Amino acid sequence: MEKKINVVVWNEFRHEKLNEKCRAVYPNGIHSAIAEGLNADGAFNVECAWLDKDDEHGLSQELLDRTDVLMWWGHRAHPEVKDEIVERVQKRVLEGMGLIVLHSGHKSKIFMKLMGTTCNLKWRQVGERERIWTIEPAHPIVAGLPECFTLPHTEMYGERFDIPTPKDVVFITWYEGGEVFRSGVTFERGYGRIFYFAPGHETYPIFYDPNIRRVIANAAKWAAPRIIREIPCPKVPPQEEIHTKLD
Amino acid sequence: MEKKINVVVWNEFRHEKLNEKCRAVYPNGIHSAIAEGLNADGAFNVECAWLDKDDEHGLSQELLDRTDVLMWWGHRAHPEVKDEIVERVQKRVLEGMGLIVLHSGHKSKIFMKLMGTTCNLKWRQVGERERIWTIEPAHPIVAGLPECFTLPHTEMYGERFDIPTPKDVVFITWYEGGEVFRSGVTFERGYGRIFYFAPGHETYPIFYDPNIRRVIANAAKWAAPRIIREIPCPKVPPQEEIHTKLD
Amino acid sequence: MEKKINVVVWNEFRHEKLNEKCRAVYPNGIHSAIAEGLNADGAFNVECAWLDKDDEHGLSQELLDRTDVLMWWGHRAHPEVKDEIVERVQKRVLEGMGLIVLHSGHKSKIFMKLMGTTCNLKWRQVGERERIWTIEPAHPIVAGLPECFTLPHTEMYGERFDIPTPKDVVFITWYEGGEVFRSGVTFERGYGRIFYFAPGHETYPIFYDPNIRRVIANAAKWAAPRIIREIPCPKVPPQEEIHTKLD
Amino acid sequence: MEKKINVVVWNEFRHEKLNEKCRAVYPNGIHSAIAEGLNADGAFNVECAWLDKDDEHGLSQELLDRTDVLMWWGHRAHPEVKDEIVERVQKRVLEGMGLIVLHSGHKSKIFMKLMGTTCNLKWRQVGERERIWTIEPAHPIVAGLPECFTLPHTEMYGERFDIPTPKDVVFITWYEGGEVFRSGVTFERGYGRIFYFAPGHETYPIFYDPNIRRVIANAAKWAAPRIIREIPCPKVPPQEEIHTKLD
Repeated sequence: MEKKINVVVWNEFRHEKLNEKCRAVYPNGIHSAIAEGLNADGAFNVECAWLDKDDEHGLSQELLDRTDVLMWWGHRAHPEVKDEIVERVQKRVLEGMGLIVLHSGHKSKIFMKLMGTTCNLKWRQVGERERIWTIEPAHPIVAGLPECFTLPHTEMYGERFDIPTPKDVVFITWYEGGEVFRSGVTFERGYGRIFYFAPGHETYPIFYDPNIRRVIANAAKWAAPRIIREIPCPKVPPQEEIHTKLD
Repeated sequence: MEKKINVVVWNEFRHEKLNEKCRAVYPNGIHSAIAEGLNADGAFNVECAWLDKDDEHGLSQELLDRTDVLMWWGHRAHPEVKDEIVERVQKRVLEGMGLIVLHSGHKSKIFMKLMGTTCNLKWRQVGERERIWTIEPAHPIVAGLPECFTLPHTEMYGERFDIPTPKDVVFITWYEGGEVFRSGVTFERGYGRIFYFAPGHETYPIFYDPNIRRVIANAAKWAAPRIIREIPCPKVPPQEEIHTKLD
Repeated sequence: MEKKINVVVWNEFRHEKLNEKCRAVYPNGIHSAIAEGLNADGAFNVECAWLDKDDEHGLSQELLDRTDVLMWWGHRAHPEVKDEIVERVQKRVLEGMGLIVLHSGHKSKIFMKLMGTTCNLKWRQVGERERIWTIEPAHPIVAGLPECFTLPHTEMYGERFDIPTPKDVVFITWYEGGEVFRSGVTFERGYGRIFYFAPGHETYPIFYDPNIRRVIANAAKWAAPRIIREIPCPKVPPQEEIHTKLD
Repeated sequence: MEKKINVVVWNEFRHEKLNEKCRAVYPNGIHSAIAEGLNADGAFNVECAWLDKDDEHGLSQELLDRTDVLMWWGHRAHPEVKDEIVERVQKRVLEGMGLIVLHSGHKSKIFMKLMGTTCNLKWRQVGERERIWTIEPAHPIVAGLPECFTLPHTEMYGERFDIPTPKDVVFITWYEGGEVFRSGVTFERGYGRIFYFAPGHETYPIFYDPNIRRVIANAAKWAAPRIIREIPCPKVPPQEEIHTKLD
């Protein structure tokens, strides 16, 4: 039996308490809907964590040390995430853990820290239609998906998206209102893989959509660690005899 | 007459005071040697700044606002650079200012912040020979250079260098002791251009070398802003009429 | 006075003779409309060539040797372009000449030869609206352009576009019919720069559009040679003494 | 039991007949040594083919249709490979088959056709030492390898290597004679993956080296098809109602 991939779904879990519409769609939290989709796949051990779970936002070093892939959904409380926890997550990503950043996580401390840019974009929340196009048909993240699929209601995230040039632009989105967006993009930082995926507004049932669940499960498999290793900065002896004499 | 490019050469300027060998090579500071090389080119207005110049490390907002390209040499005092100044520089880079990071600046707060990685590498300081090979002959940073050139004495910086995949690997270095290094690499972040260049240990006269000066002057021209503009995150109206009705 | 950039606009020039609609829009040929736009800029010396101009399709070695940037519009007669002329152009591109490939030139022999892929895409010709979004605001090809602009009638070219990952995705297009396209993409091959730009169907007045003309003029400046040089495959002596003894 | 990967090792197989030194090292042909290494891994079904095997160079359509990964070693007889066979292989690579190009295969028709460039480089054949450094420690192609390893005798292939910017620079080589080389580089074209690996001169026992065999087996696993699919160029109906009226 193949070893399961340990996934932690991290959710800010505030909108669900403050916003009735959000609670109606995600009564047990966005994380529960995502976890449900991952559990249906069968390849994962799934745990959940959230901002107010404990004084480490549920992200103890012990948990991270056994996490293969971390998912991140946050929005209104980005500034409340403690810097020391962000640094802990960044270190683990660089050492090999996968990171899937969802929707408004584009402005999370962890994503901005790994990108080095503002991650700004255009936005509009009127419930328009979104069509997601596959740009890299051979990429494992699109396995089993049609060449395009639609979401009936979405928040618009539009270009210019201020990110470094991605490793792969896996998806580009078409919006009813006239914008486009690189809605699925990959990065590698240190030994870790990162996938940003744009859909996922808190008042639409996007994380119940079968295609969206397929993307997220594929991404978690793709982002699972290839190696997990510290990144040293060693002083090393020469490999070859050095003939140069200093004056 | 073409407009000159405003360059600020920032140097930590501590080794020169603490280390006799360094002072012997750079009696007026590493920044002065770099500035001298840039002034000889004729395309630049050059100013210098350093860690202890004033309580903003010589990097006032007013100065940055009129700087086209910032050069950065630092080493032992990286932690003393104030976070607010680092954020100020990062913002300006993302808005279009060029940044040239030299040698041990690979572990500076500003470079690590823009890269999102540890920027770790292997190192050895025995004064061995280095040969720098041009990998991209058409890149403006190599204009006027031979296909390879040597430095008689250098500090070794070896792979694995923990950086994001560069936009261009402009130079790869061969070391006498048996290592290799991507010694000249470019990045784009926000609207700004970044060049990291490895040579430049404080006790060798590397910044007087004509080829090194050619690289640095070329890099400053290449990194000069194409645009300077704030990066917004605007809520925008649709471009097309939206027909979707929310339930 | 700055030296002008020598541009050759190459056009198949067959549709204009066979298709009344095309002739109505481009009575002197598509090349003439493109040349007119370039001439208005003032930075270029413009010549035109076409498939039936002479038995070298107007692309003598002598002409190529003094050409900085070649533009290519072709469609129905791609197979009639002689292989030896294609190889001549490819050699010149690799040695540093810029190449701008327009619209249906995506299936030209020269573009496919430089890409190594099929360059296939989806298409539809119903005269729908196209909106072109700037993805890289600092790229010289977008200088002076708004963040998006529209073409009232266009042929749809949609993803998946079978090209190697571009150096830069400069533009992404939104189509009224629901598709997206990486409509402005850059490549570097050898010492030469290549820009593919999707708009330009032969029965729409796209090459008279001021924004389109701005893109094409910007692209020609961006693609102008940085160096022009043969690409050798030399046997070379060692740079360092070799101590290894063969058994 | 996991399905085995079908690998075809293609070898020009001329040097072994014409050059006594080569025959002494590879009495059954270079392909046999490569196949032996792959068979020892256990993950592959291995077949061999060569230039003079039959009038299709052993590469029938039927064989290619069931090949997951093709390896290519050629040198003196590159021009004798028939263009129609090269086109057949290119088509299959674009549709998803992996391709591993070894050593002097850099000037093969198939590699040049997929790259679009000259693939020229510097070279020298004096039997010097080569040290291969891992640049991407998390890449599957380096699994199980030390961070560097040496070959006691090698042919030097040096930069500038005229290839498109690779997807990943997996290895960089240090040569005793003072050059460097991007000796292990990946590309994606169409749906297929391509790996070029520099070591492998015909008179050295490089393909018996355990580290080299590890690289080649890893590369074959990495390059195995993710999908196999034709690349269409379809005329498609709109996804959305089109309101634009042509004049």
